[in-house]
Amino acid sequence: MTKLLIDCDPGIDDALALALAAGSPSLEIVGITTVGGNVDLSLTTANALALREFLDLGEVPVVAGSPGALLRHDVRATTVHGSSGLGDAVLPPATRPAEDGHAVDFIIETLRAAPGEITLVAIGPLTNIALAVRKEPRVVEWARDFVIMGGSYTRGNTNPAAEFNMLADPEAAAIVFEAGWSVKMLGLDVTLTALVTSDVLERMRPLGRLSDLLVPAATSYGVVTAEGGPAIHDACAVAYVLDASLFTCVPAVVRVETAGRYTSGMTVTDFKAADRGANALVATSLDVKRFWDVVLDAYTRLAARLG
Amino acid sequence: MTKLLIDCDPGIDDALALALAAGSPSLEIVGITTVGGNVDLSLTTANALALREFLDLGEVPVVAGSPGALLRHDVRATTVHGSSGLGDAVLPPATRPAEDGHAVDFIIETLRAAPGEITLVAIGPLTNIALAVRKEPRVVEWARDFVIMGGSYTRGNTNPAAEFNMLADPEAAAIVFEAGWSVKMLGLDVTLTALVTSDVLERMRPLGRLSDLLVPAATSYGVVTAEGGPAIHDACAVAYVLDASLFTCVPAVVRVETAGRYTSGMTVTDFKAADRGANALVATSLDVKRFWDVVLDAYTRLAARLG
Amino acid sequence: MTKLLIDCDPGIDDALALALAAGSPSLEIVGITTVGGNVDLSLTTANALALREFLDLGEVPVVAGSPGALLRHDVRATTVHGSSGLGDAVLPPATRPAEDGHAVDFIIETLRAAPGEITLVAIGPLTNIALAVRKEPRVVEWARDFVIMGGSYTRGNTNPAAEFNMLADPEAAAIVFEAGWSVKMLGLDVTLTALVTSDVLERMRPLGRLSDLLVPAATSYGVVTAEGGPAIHDACAVAYVLDASLFTCVPAVVRVETAGRYTSGMTVTDFKAADRGANALVATSLDVKRFWDVVLDAYTRLAARLG
Amino acid sequence: MTKLLIDCDPGIDDALALALAAGSPSLEIVGITTVGGNVDLSLTTANALALREFLDLGEVPVVAGSPGALLRHDVRATTVHGSSGLGDAVLPPATRPAEDGHAVDFIIETLRAAPGEITLVAIGPLTNIALAVRKEPRVVEWARDFVIMGGSYTRGNTNPAAEFNMLADPEAAAIVFEAGWSVKMLGLDVTLTALVTSDVLERMRPLGRLSDLLVPAATSYGVVTAEGGPAIHDACAVAYVLDASLFTCVPAVVRVETAGRYTSGMTVTDFKAADRGANALVATSLDVKRFWDVVLDAYTRLAARLG
Repeated sequence: MTKLLIDCDPGIDDALALALAAGSPSLEIVGITTVGGNVDLSLTTANALALREFLDLGEVPVVAGSPGALLRHDVRATTVHGSSGLGDAVLPPATRPAEDGHAVDFIIETLRAAPGEITLVAIGPLTNIALAVRKEPRVVEWARDFVIMGGSYTRGNTNPAAEFNMLADPEAAAIVFEAGWSVKMLGLDVTLTALVTSDVLERMRPLGRLSDLLVPAATSYGVVTAEGGPAIHDACAVAYVLDASLFTCVPAVVRVETAGRYTSGMTVTDFKAADRGANALVATSLDVKRFWDVVLDAYTRLAARLG
Repeated sequence: MTKLLIDCDPGIDDALALALAAGSPSLEIVGITTVGGNVDLSLTTANALALREFLDLGEVPVVAGSPGALLRHDVRATTVHGSSGLGDAVLPPATRPAEDGHAVDFIIETLRAAPGEITLVAIGPLTNIALAVRKEPRVVEWARDFVIMGGSYTRGNTNPAAEFNMLADPEAAAIVFEAGWSVKMLGLDVTLTALVTSDVLERMRPLGRLSDLLVPAATSYGVVTAEGGPAIHDACAVAYVLDASLFTCVPAVVRVETAGRYTSGMTVTDFKAADRGANALVATSLDVKRFWDVVLDAYTRLAARLG
Repeated sequence: MTKLLIDCDPGIDDALALALAAGSPSLEIVGITTVGGNVDLSLTTANALALREFLDLGEVPVVAGSPGALLRHDVRATTVHGSSGLGDAVLPPATRPAEDGHAVDFIIETLRAAPGEITLVAIGPLTNIALAVRKEPRVVEWARDFVIMGGSYTRGNTNPAAEFNMLADPEAAAIVFEAGWSVKMLGLDVTLTALVTSDVLERMRPLGRLSDLLVPAATSYGVVTAEGGPAIHDACAVAYVLDASLFTCVPAVVRVETAGRYTSGMTVTDFKAADRGANALVATSLDVKRFWDVVLDAYTRLAARLG
Repeated sequence: MTKLLIDCDPGIDDALALALAAGSPSLEIVGITTVGGNVDLSLTTANALALREFLDLGEVPVVAGSPGALLRHDVRATTVHGSSGLGDAVLPPATRPAEDGHAVDFIIETLRAAPGEITLVAIGPLTNIALAVRKEPRVVEWARDFVIMGGSYTRGNTNPAAEFNMLADPEAAAIVFEAGWSVKMLGLDVTLTALVTSDVLERMRPLGRLSDLLVPAATSYGVVTAEGGPAIHDACAVAYVLDASLFTCVPAVVRVETAGRYTSGMTVTDFKAADRGANALVATSLDVKRFWDVVLDAYTRLAARLG
């Protein structure tokens, strides 16, 4: 049983990632923290709360965190995730509020209480994680592992150089990558192969109530075809925790550019320098078929529970 | 009675600033938070604790905060402040430890508990303040006023462009100046006129036990002559709270450079742009004679108490 | 017949590019200008002069240009090109000196004298071209076409973000890409597919005296195997002039990063923005088989002439 | 007799500087080169040509140079210098055209022809000088001295950090300050004390035909009062060549910021580092009374000649 603390900005693919965790018996979600990212913090928190109930996550604490980036003006992705943040998916509003407190403290205290036990998974901008690292540097030791969806060693998405989560808070990303741990980086290099094709979509349709989330979310996100479709980026980070062997990973030195005119937020990845001290393990390929088997297996299990 | 929360990195001139606050009946210190700056956090905290007892501050909480800058490698000023941080002054070690918790939370909670009542005075690098602003943006509204020693509109000290407190954490300074309040900026422009001349030193000597702090601190800090001497920068920030009329202040737009090769940490001050929305009130001159009267008056009062 | 003015820093692959031009009856080299790059200007000029005689280029003027970058310290590639700049190839020293004058003026005057007729090919750092553009902006109109080997939209070689020619003078590259023409960019994306494999090498061996250049040059440059080998980057630029259909090219907006901490010299390539005004035509693939047929055909023809 | 080559962008104060040189028997102007700056190159050149005739400079060559900055978009000062560049002064249009060729070549060839004899004075953006230095690094040795009006160690004028000539081409300024010579820097620190007060203006009025230039130029430039008035910045550079003892000068290391967000073009001046190798001699004060005596003496002498 692996314990997960998930920092997220739901976000369509965040929702699909949470569903993956929820349907995986080997994972236990010990907390969900939210950050402004794909949409504003009020929405990412509302969505996390709605998902807690829709996915039947029980008493998992949901704690709101940072509304915006450390230094920059906010970048949002509403053209991708819709004004609600969940695309065309409509969930019942949550009946229970977020827990009191701040995500940064929740992260620190949760990790402090169980050193070496909890894997921290960050699938939004890294603002909360950076603040936690600066407030309590020992979180780096306390985390069992640290896994992100973000960055890339070949391209950007929001602009040619930077991936959205990194661009949204480059200084936070720089702090996090320099913090002293080995960042497991699931970037666009692999997540852009995790596509909801028409075959995948067909396997999502019969999943009862869960399909009310999966299908409209996925189809509002991009065009589904036999060979292509929307990428469910964030689910890759949870999949990595479930089964790292789905990915080929290579050690690297990753530096986050904060000074560039055209390149801020770029994760400059030097594989050749890794023998002089890697700070990241970078996913370079994904076994797409096995990935979807793992994901749909979890979704099916969850669907059975949700009815 | 003005309530003060002092964020500091003692530091010789921090000590002299705390002594000024301690000797001023119109000021009440409601808390002292520490930050890595002139020397390491462990020393600035130890010094703050020793000063709490030496200056007879009673139950004022002392809470430790951030050890280093948000993004940069640490810059220290041990050549100025000595390896202990208090120059040649030797205080008895504190008998009581720091309060639990983190400076960032203490700042937030203290201001939250008394909105509009407490003046926040920051006389070290702005790391704690920036983290507080990012964690709880409403501190900006809750603070009665926000006063810093730092920056300059004409020069630097650590390098030609930047003052030490700003250079030590330029990104934190940028966050703080952009936070939405009016920063009262007591920079090198005025603090370099607040010099411990030989006349001032003579007035410090007869102050009993207090002179055991004041005299070695001041004299280890620079050469005292009839016309010149070490600047007690940080005391200017407390003096401003005591009596703003000691200073001429001019509204300005202040931007903190974070991208420069030679200018990071520079407080670029545009007085002409102030009518389009100033974010700072910048001290441009100090009535030096009255300043020392105010300061030595407070020291004398404190000395009478300390014996 | 296409007239070529080649600005270069020989450099092994520069030599192979010059040999390609020399062996192509449809090309006429009207001048060779040199720049500091792979090795120092004195060597790149000496090598250009030696190649003029070895390749039997007759009266083609060779004019030396800029020794180093506009603003940066020099970056050299002697670990790749050897201390002479031509790897293990040893050519007889030139018997004739370079023409008087400066490359920048030669470029300007040559293009001015035949507006619309001459294709400018730059296969080293862009210092000379940038200076020519700044001294006489009309070179942009006078050039029939402007083709470079340099940059990439996916990776660097000297570091993870930047290709050598761009890294060696990022400000010059920025000037050149913003100059108002459509830069034909043959970057690492395609040049790293133009590999001297063992099959290619076998076809070079029987080429008489020319093979004395080709074979040691190519084999000193990297390990030749059945499937891999050294890339002859610069020859791609000449090949593009010979037959653009060898390449797939896509319009793009290319910005050269000059401000980045880790990314200076990166050619940030935005294909999606091209409809708002492309400044470059970027090669995205190379027909490798046809490329080598074209190149070896030219080499064979040249070899017949050289004996 | 000191030979001067003046690179300028007239510009009101450029005109007043040329008049100063023209009226000084100990100076010989050997050439005037123009650069885009205060106004566009076409105007600065037209103004230089008009001044050559109005000031009766005879056969002094006037050669046009760079229209704009190396990398940046053009910054102009037409709000200061008027749309013509000469404020309210109206000169007869020149009857003779500029000499052929480019300022960069003229600078190089003129200095090459008389090594150690000619003082180069630059009173506009440093684009031409930078290009000359890059094209022929030996100009640094050939120049007898190199004097600029530009920069400051305390403030800017166009913005809080940068003086106009430096801001207009920061990269050129960086090249020039790093070129290996000792730059004599007459910055705002002194030029803002060289004010045309009402007393000075009264001494300009009776100067016959010359006053037709001096008076409208000076009065269109700023408000003349008993104690203040427009600064004739550029004349300081010529005055320095005439009599360096008018100025107090201090050696310094000057770095030009090119990376700052708010500080590009700032001349970061480190006097303390000078003993580790100064690259500039920076004027820190001006004997204003003697300055005006020198200037008005020259103007009077010139007026006698012009009638």
